[in-house]
Amino acid sequence: MSIITIERKVLEKNDEIARQNRADFQQHGIFAFNVVSSPGAGKTSILERTLEHIGQELRIAVIEGDVQTDFDARRVARYKVPVVQIVTNGGCHLEARLVRDALAGIELAGLEILIIENVGNLVCPANYDLGEAMKVVVLSTTEGDDKPLKYPGMFLNASVLIINKIDLIPYVNCDLAALRSNALQINPALRVFETSCTTLAGIPEWCDWLKSKVSAKP
Amino acid sequence: MSIITIERKVLEKNDEIARQNRADFQQHGIFAFNVVSSPGAGKTSILERTLEHIGQELRIAVIEGDVQTDFDARRVARYKVPVVQIVTNGGCHLEARLVRDALAGIELAGLEILIIENVGNLVCPANYDLGEAMKVVVLSTTEGDDKPLKYPGMFLNASVLIINKIDLIPYVNCDLAALRSNALQINPALRVFETSCTTLAGIPEWCDWLKSKVSAKP
Repeated sequence: MSIITIERKVLEKNDEIARQNRADFQQHGIFAFNVVSSPGAGKTSILERTLEHIGQELRIAVIEGDVQTDFDARRVARYKVPVVQIVTNGGCHLEARLVRDALAGIELAGLEILIIENVGNLVCPANYDLGEAMKVVVLSTTEGDDKPLKYPGMFLNASVLIINKIDLIPYVNCDLAALRSNALQINPALRVFETSCTTLAGIPEWCDWLKSKVSAKP
Repeated sequence: MSIITIERKVLEKNDEIARQNRADFQQHGIFAFNVVSSPGAGKTSILERTLEHIGQELRIAVIEGDVQTDFDARRVARYKVPVVQIVTNGGCHLEARLVRDALAGIELAGLEILIIENVGNLVCPANYDLGEAMKVVVLSTTEGDDKPLKYPGMFLNASVLIINKIDLIPYVNCDLAALRSNALQINPALRVFETSCTTLAGIPEWCDWLKSKVSAKP
């Protein structure tokens, strides 16, 4: 028995539970997405701006994944939406089983959007299906425009790229056109948004797109 | 046979090879350190500024670890130091075996410093000993001051913290005193440097400390 076999079994088991999650989301007409990024790219800030913008209008719940602490769940809870914190205790990614356990604490009936914020890690979460409709990868301009080429797995597996902290462009070494081009070279189908959680640039466009995903539900 | 057992065996095998690497470094009087951070925190930029500052004075070699591309090795090679690129092809951390293979391409005799730049990942590389004398964790101010508490493993296992991009402090939501205090709460023994690769603030202090590690060699 090789390690490869063990890993494949772990992924197969994960995919099986992800399918159960996905079936639940579809049954209840919930648009669920999995937000991934490096630590500090601004996942939670985008979530806060999103809840400010459309949190009254749509029924949204949040699952927070963190290696340690419940800081993010506390930030989100201020917006009066259901939120469950998963602490992985050193684990580098969320798995479908952890999400399934968290779902037990959320009323799915009537829910329109479920946001799953993954652990900050641009590598490992790419390989784990949680049952989401899509992965949304957030990349901060401060990380540099070469990152899609250096960490291609995540950009290949995501459907949406949010380029965040565009207000910092004047101060950092990041060519926005090159970043966009590098990301689309890895995955030409990526839907790209450019946002700043400070100036709120791009937040309305992102939220309009989110609303369109809800109204497009069968 | 459980997965836990397999993982323990993988780590035991890694530690065994790490011991061989460490013995080689000690035999040749090489100060080897393992640079870890999130993607885009500035590992390679710090390396470039370090080579500019003391690359003529000390005999330095570099091992670059990346998920994909040889961009970083090409950046470092401009400084005319020996450099070997390891591409992990999706792997989220370096292992001692990969470093051992890379060492075959580096002349160890006469070398004073070996810098191993790990894959950009604030979680997984914390658990893998490469044979280094110490881990140096780089955290960018743009990532926010809460990161040591949210990703404690890396800060616990590191001996040095470089807080980078301090020139961006006026534009980002990061309290430098809080960052330092959070890091020292996790690991009171951390030696902390504050740097900017743009203004070069802190680079001389970091390089002086590096030189002291070389002169302290038996």
